[in-house]
Amino acid sequence: MNQNYIKPDSWSIIEEGFDKDLVKSSESIFSLGNGAMGQRANFEETYTGETFQGSYIAGVYYPDKTRVGWWKNGYPEYFAKVLNAPNWIGVGIKVNGEVFDLNTCKNVSDFKRELNMKEGLYKRSFKAVLPNDAHIKVDVLRFLSLNIDEVGAIEYTVTALGTDLEIEMEPYIDSGITNEDSNWDDKFWETTSVKSENHQAFIEAHTMKTNFKTCTFMQASFFVDGETVELEPSIDKGELRVGHSYSQVLKEGQTIALHKFGGYIVDRNHPGKDLVKVAQETLSKASELGFDELLKKQKQSWADIWEMSDIAIEGDVKAQQGIRFNIFQLNQTYLGRDSRLNIGPKGFTGEKYGGSTYWDTEAYCIPFYMATKNQKVARNLLKYRYNHLEKAIENAQKLGFSNGAALYPMVTMNGEECHNEWEITFEEIHRNGAIAFAIYNYYRFTGDYSYIPEMGLEVLIGIARFWYQRANFSKQKNKYVILGVTGPNEYENNVNNNWYTNYLAQWCIDFAVAQLEKVQDSFKDDYKRVVGKTQLTDGEVSQWKKVAKNMYFPYSEENGVFLQQDGFLDKQLITVSELPSAQRPINQKWSWDRILRSPYIKQADVLQGFYFFEDHFSVEELQKHFDFYEPFTVHESSLSPCVHSIQAAKLDRMEQAYKFYLRTSRLDLDDYNKEVEEGLHITSMAGTWMSIVEGFGGMRVKNDQLSFEPKIPEQWSSYSFKVNFRNNIIKVSVRKQGAEFELRGNDTLTILYNDAEIDLRPGVPTKAS
Amino acid sequence: MNQNYIKPDSWSIIEEGFDKDLVKSSESIFSLGNGAMGQRANFEETYTGETFQGSYIAGVYYPDKTRVGWWKNGYPEYFAKVLNAPNWIGVGIKVNGEVFDLNTCKNVSDFKRELNMKEGLYKRSFKAVLPNDAHIKVDVLRFLSLNIDEVGAIEYTVTALGTDLEIEMEPYIDSGITNEDSNWDDKFWETTSVKSENHQAFIEAHTMKTNFKTCTFMQASFFVDGETVELEPSIDKGELRVGHSYSQVLKEGQTIALHKFGGYIVDRNHPGKDLVKVAQETLSKASELGFDELLKKQKQSWADIWEMSDIAIEGDVKAQQGIRFNIFQLNQTYLGRDSRLNIGPKGFTGEKYGGSTYWDTEAYCIPFYMATKNQKVARNLLKYRYNHLEKAIENAQKLGFSNGAALYPMVTMNGEECHNEWEITFEEIHRNGAIAFAIYNYYRFTGDYSYIPEMGLEVLIGIARFWYQRANFSKQKNKYVILGVTGPNEYENNVNNNWYTNYLAQWCIDFAVAQLEKVQDSFKDDYKRVVGKTQLTDGEVSQWKKVAKNMYFPYSEENGVFLQQDGFLDKQLITVSELPSAQRPINQKWSWDRILRSPYIKQADVLQGFYFFEDHFSVEELQKHFDFYEPFTVHESSLSPCVHSIQAAKLDRMEQAYKFYLRTSRLDLDDYNKEVEEGLHITSMAGTWMSIVEGFGGMRVKNDQLSFEPKIPEQWSSYSFKVNFRNNIIKVSVRKQGAEFELRGNDTLTILYNDAEIDLRPGVPTKAS
Repeated sequence: MNQNYIKPDSWSIIEEGFDKDLVKSSESIFSLGNGAMGQRANFEETYTGETFQGSYIAGVYYPDKTRVGWWKNGYPEYFAKVLNAPNWIGVGIKVNGEVFDLNTCKNVSDFKRELNMKEGLYKRSFKAVLPNDAHIKVDVLRFLSLNIDEVGAIEYTVTALGTDLEIEMEPYIDSGITNEDSNWDDKFWETTSVKSENHQAFIEAHTMKTNFKTCTFMQASFFVDGETVELEPSIDKGELRVGHSYSQVLKEGQTIALHKFGGYIVDRNHPGKDLVKVAQETLSKASELGFDELLKKQKQSWADIWEMSDIAIEGDVKAQQGIRFNIFQLNQTYLGRDSRLNIGPKGFTGEKYGGSTYWDTEAYCIPFYMATKNQKVARNLLKYRYNHLEKAIENAQKLGFSNGAALYPMVTMNGEECHNEWEITFEEIHRNGAIAFAIYNYYRFTGDYSYIPEMGLEVLIGIARFWYQRANFSKQKNKYVILGVTGPNEYENNVNNNWYTNYLAQWCIDFAVAQLEKVQDSFKDDYKRVVGKTQLTDGEVSQWKKVAKNMYFPYSEENGVFLQQDGFLDKQLITVSELPSAQRPINQKWSWDRILRSPYIKQADVLQGFYFFEDHFSVEELQKHFDFYEPFTVHESSLSPCVHSIQAAKLDRMEQAYKFYLRTSRLDLDDYNKEVEEGLHITSMAGTWMSIVEGFGGMRVKNDQLSFEPKIPEQWSSYSFKVNFRNNIIKVSVRKQGAEFELRGNDTLTILYNDAEIDLRPGVPTKAS
Repeated sequence: MNQNYIKPDSWSIIEEGFDKDLVKSSESIFSLGNGAMGQRANFEETYTGETFQGSYIAGVYYPDKTRVGWWKNGYPEYFAKVLNAPNWIGVGIKVNGEVFDLNTCKNVSDFKRELNMKEGLYKRSFKAVLPNDAHIKVDVLRFLSLNIDEVGAIEYTVTALGTDLEIEMEPYIDSGITNEDSNWDDKFWETTSVKSENHQAFIEAHTMKTNFKTCTFMQASFFVDGETVELEPSIDKGELRVGHSYSQVLKEGQTIALHKFGGYIVDRNHPGKDLVKVAQETLSKASELGFDELLKKQKQSWADIWEMSDIAIEGDVKAQQGIRFNIFQLNQTYLGRDSRLNIGPKGFTGEKYGGSTYWDTEAYCIPFYMATKNQKVARNLLKYRYNHLEKAIENAQKLGFSNGAALYPMVTMNGEECHNEWEITFEEIHRNGAIAFAIYNYYRFTGDYSYIPEMGLEVLIGIARFWYQRANFSKQKNKYVILGVTGPNEYENNVNNNWYTNYLAQWCIDFAVAQLEKVQDSFKDDYKRVVGKTQLTDGEVSQWKKVAKNMYFPYSEENGVFLQQDGFLDKQLITVSELPSAQRPINQKWSWDRILRSPYIKQADVLQGFYFFEDHFSVEELQKHFDFYEPFTVHESSLSPCVHSIQAAKLDRMEQAYKFYLRTSRLDLDDYNKEVEEGLHITSMAGTWMSIVEGFGGMRVKNDQLSFEPKIPEQWSSYSFKVNFRNNIIKVSVRKQGAEFELRGNDTLTILYNDAEIDLRPGVPTKAS
C-alpha cells in the first residue's frame, strides 16, 4: 500500500483536506464516466499546480506514429492512442478581478471531494482565501448523464464570505489540448469551427488521420440565491476556444450558481455534417428536463445499475468501499450498449497503454458483464472480436502465418495491432487462447450456443490454424513444442514451452474440433457456410488433432508440478518473502535482465491456467501448484491478485484470500503499485468482482447448473450479490451461519450448493448451511 | 552478392561510368580516412541527386538522447552518436554562370572513380555537358595526409572543352550540417566564429553537450595550365558557412586547377582557445611543403604501411583486390597512434551503429594490429579498456552487481554504455569474455607479460567477479548456470546456458586465477597494489573457482556436440540450403519471433568459441561442431564468414574456405548484405586478414612459438604476407609447391612448420614443403 488518504465509507470515496501532492492521484480516483465519455477529476477552474488533464470520448483515438529504438520487421506503423479530447468542463472564476486558483490561494479550508458512487455524482467543496484576501466558499457538483449520454452537467456555486464580492464566471470549451504521451508532438485535433450563440457555444473538431468528427458544446444558466438570473455574457472567441464571461456582484453571504451543460456529439452516432444541429437538439432536450430532473434521473439510473450489480459487505467498510469502487468504475467505463466499443485498461481515467482492447476483456471482464447485465452485453464483446477476424488473419500473415491462421492483436482499437515490443507483440500469443476461452465461457454460463455457429466457429478455426502452425515438432522430445513465447507472466520473455500457452493451444484445437463436429451435426447450413468460407478440409483438422494430442508440457517429477516453462528449475529459487522490501516493486528497481532470470512472477501464469481449467485438475493438484508458484509471485500486474484470491478461497485459505481481495479491490484507492496518478486499472476491477463471486461465493457452472460453495472471510459478518444466470436473477447472501438464495423471475431453478441440488422458487428465500 | 560494378584491379578500386543509383554505394566504398578524420566519397561540387553526406572526426561524438518505445530500467540516457562534422571538401563550380551539378548535366561521359590504395589517393574524372551546353572535363584528386593528419588536400581541375568558358570556383567550408539518424532533430553543432582572411577561412564550432571544440579550415590556390595565378576572391560569409569565389575565363583547351587544403584542428590535441592559430600554423606547414611534396609524402607513408601489412595474392585479382581493400580501410580507420581512440564498426564511412567500440575490437581487430604494427598499438587497445574499468564497474552496478564486478559496455565512446536494446545491452554479456581473451591473446602473441601486472589483472578481477555473480547454482542440474543471455548469435535472445558464454565465463575465471598466482609469484609489488585496490580476498577467489569448476555446458550425446544453448534441439532443424532464397536475408524478411524460434545462426557462436579455444578441442571435435552448425548459419553478420573460413581451412575444406574468404573480403565491394550505402563494415575486415593469415596460412602461436600450416586455395598460384612476431618480421610466401619463410632483423627464430621446428636466419629465405 502506498497511500492511505481516502476516507472509509461504504458508498462514497472521500478526500478531506487540500494537498497539492495528491491532486494527480485524486484526479484519477475521482474520475467520472458514462460509457460514452469520461474525464479525470480535473478542477473546473484554473489550476496552475501539478495536474494531469484528461477528457476522453469512447472510440475516438489517434494512430500515433510508432516510436521505437530498434525497429523489428512486423511492428505496426502506428500506435492507437487514447486521445485527450476537447475540454468542456472549464469554468474560469475571477473574484474582484483576480483569477481564482487553488494553487495560489492564501488559504484553503474544509476542502472535500466526494465521489458518490450510489448516485453517480462527483462533489467538491471548500473555502478559500484569494491573494487579494477575498473569501469565498465553493460547492461543485458534476455528473455525466447515463440518460442522455452525450451530456454532462456541472453546478458550480460560489458564496461570498465576509464581504461583498464581484464574481466573474467564464464557462468555456477548448479544443487546444494535448496528450501527455505524444510521441512526435503531433497535433492530434484540427478545429474547423467555433460558434457562440445565446448562452451556448460549439466547437467542431476532428482528429487528424482518423478524422473522427466531434462537436464539443456547452450551455450556461445562472442562479443567485436559487433564483434564475439573466446575465449577459461578454464573449471571448478564439480559434480553438470560446468562453462566455458573466459578472455578478454578490452581497456577503449570497451565492451564485452556474448550471453548465456540456459534452460531445460524435459522428459515430450522427452524420458528420449535423453535429452542431444535434448538439443544439441535445441541449434543448437537457434544458427541457432541467438540471434537477437530469440529476434525479441520474440517481435512478445508478440505482438500477446497483440493484443488479451491487455487492454488499457487512462488517468491513474498507472491503465494502473497495468492491463498490470497482463495480462503479466498470459501469462508468463500459455499459455494453455499443458493440463497437470495448473496455480500455484505463477506461476514461488516463492515457497510458493506448488501445482499448487487451486480452483483459476476455479473461477478466466478460464474467462480470455476463452476470450483472443481460447476456447481450457479453455477446457484444464476443462479436467485437468476430468483427476483427479479418484483421487478425492479416496480422498473422505479417508474422509469416498463412491459410487463414488468425492472431488477434495484443492491443487494438480497430482490430489492427498497435503495440510494439517484440517480446509482447509477437510473442505474447496466449491472448489468442483467451479469446477462444471466452467463447466457451459465454456458452457455459449463458447456455446460448447460437454465437458459435453464427460467428464463433470462424474465430475458432482461425485460432486453431494459428496454433497448429505455431507449434513445431521436436524430434528430441518426440512432441510438439511452442518455442519463443511470453506467457501471462511478462517477467519471462521468449521462453520455450510456457505451460499456460501450450495448454491453451491444445485446448483451443480440441475445442474447435468439438464445435466443428457439433455444428456439423446440428447447424448444417452454418457448417456449410463456414467450411466454404474458410476452405477448411478434413485433412487439415486431423493435422490439428495430431498437434494437440502430442503437445509437450514441461513437468517436474520431483515437485509434482507443471513447470511455468522449460528451464524454470534452473533459476535461483528464492521466495518473494526473502526479497528485501527496498528491492520492490522489482519492475521499478531492477534491470530487465535481472527480472527475467529471477523466478519472480508478475502475474498468475500456470495458476491462470488452473483458474481457466479448474475442472481439469484435482484440488490436490491445485494446492501443489499454488504452493509452488504463489511464493514467487510479486503481483506487479493488477490482474494477478484476483486469481490468487479465488484459488486461496478454493483451498480454504481464507486469510490469504482476504489479503489478496483487499489488494485487488483497493489497488488504486491505496495505490499498491505506485502509479495511480496515471489512471485507474479498470480491467482488473472485474477480477475483484470475480474474487468475491467466484472466490468467496464459490460460484461455478457445473454440468449446466449454477453452483455455489460459499465461504466468508473472518472479517465480514455477511455479504451478498446478485447474478443473472440465463435470465434468472439469483440473490446470494452469505453469513457465517450459512447462505441464503433468492430467485427472481417466474420459473424455478435448481442450483448446486456445496454440490447438493437445491430447488429455488421465485420469491422464496432458501436457506442453506 | 548484390552488386558487381567495381572493376577488378589488384591495387585500385575502380568505377567506370556514371550511375546515379550507385552514388551512395560508391560514397561508402571510395571513403577516405587517415585515423584522425575521414569522409565519404561525396562530390566536392554541388550534387542535387541522392547522396549521403558524411565527414567525421575521430573521437568527436554527441550523446543523443536515447529513443525507445518502452523504457527499461538500466538503459543509458544517451546514445553516443558518430557525428557528421563540418564539411571542408566543398567546391562550388559555375560554368558561364551556371551551377555545375552532375545530377542536371545533359551528358556525362568517361566518368571514372579510382581509389588508389597503394598511394592512399582518391581520383575522379569525367567529361560533362551542362544544361547551358558548356562542355568541361574535370579531374579531381583527393587525399587525407598521413603526415600531417589534420590536413587533407584536393586538386580540382577543370578543362574548357570546345569553346572558351568562364569558370567560377568557390571553395568553402560549412558547419551547417546534420546527421541522417538524429533522434530528436537536435542541433549537434554550435558555430562560434566564421573567419576569412587572404585565401584562408576558419570556422570554429563545438559540439553541443560534449563541447568538443573544433576549427574547420581551408586555403585555396590556383593554377592555369600549371602556372600559379593570383585570383581575387569575392567572399560570401554567412553564420555557418564561408566561401571564396574565384573567377577565370579559360580558353578552349585550357585548364584551371584549384589546390585546396582543408581539415580540422580539435581540442583533444590543442588548447581550445588556440584552434584558429594552430589551424593557421598547420596551413603554413602544409603550404611550405606544397601540394606535390605532401602528395609525395603520402605515397611514401602508404608504401611504408603496405611494406608491412600487404598481402599479395597471385592468380586471383578479385581476391587480391578484396584483401587490399580490407587492409587499406583498416589502416584508414585506425593507426594506433592515440590510445584514446578505437575502431568504430563503420570507421569514417557512415553514421550507423553509433559508438566507436564494440567487442569487435578485441575479438577481430587486435590480431591484425598485433601482427602488422608494433605491439604498442595492440597494447594501446588493451589500455583503452583499462582506462574504462571504473565505468565498467559503474555499468555493472546499474544492473545490480556489486563488489567491483565489471561489465564492459556493448557499445561505447567513453566507457559508458550507449546502447539500448535490453536483449543486447543487458544480455549480450559475452563481450566481457572477449576483453579478457584479448589480454591473453596479446600476451600469447607478443610475449609481453607486463600489461597484466600493470593493468590487465585489475580488468581480469572485475570480469571474474562479474561472471561469479552472474552465474547461479541450479539445484536441478547440480551445476552453475548462466540464464538469460544473448550469445554472439544475436538471432537468439534471452537464452539459458549459451555454450559460448558459459565457456568464456569459466575460462575468464580460470585465467584470472592463474594470472593472480603468477603475479603474486613474480610481481609482488603489483600484486600488493592490485589486491589492496580491489580488496580481493582469498575466500572470494575460491568462490570463483567453485563456479568455474562446476559450470554447466549443454551437450547432445546423440549428436556428440555442445549445444548452442538449452533447448536448441527442440527447434525445427531445417538447414539454410532448404530455405527459399526469397526468404533471405531473414533479418529483412521475417518478424523477430520467427527468427528467434528458427535454428538460423546470424554469426558463429559455438564455432566462435572453437575459434578462440581451438587448442582445447580435437580436430574431430571441430569437424563435428562445424558440420552441425555451419548448415544453420546464415552469416547475416559481417563478423561470421571469416571464422568459418579459418575453420574450413583447418578442416582441409579449401573450396568452402575460399568461398567464405570471398564473402568476407568482398562483403562491401559486392554488397552481400545489401546495405553498403550506409557505410563499410570496418571491423570485420580484420577478420578477412585472419582468414588468410590464420586460415590459409595456418598461423598460430603454439607453446610460445610461431607456427604455420600453410594451405593454398585452388584458385591462387601464390600468396604472401608478413607478420611482426615479437619484433621479428617474418615474410611468409606460399605456393602450391610449399612455403618459404624469410626473416628480417638480427636474431634467428625457430618457428613451427606443420608442427616441425625450422630455424630461420635473418635474410636467408627458408623453403619448406
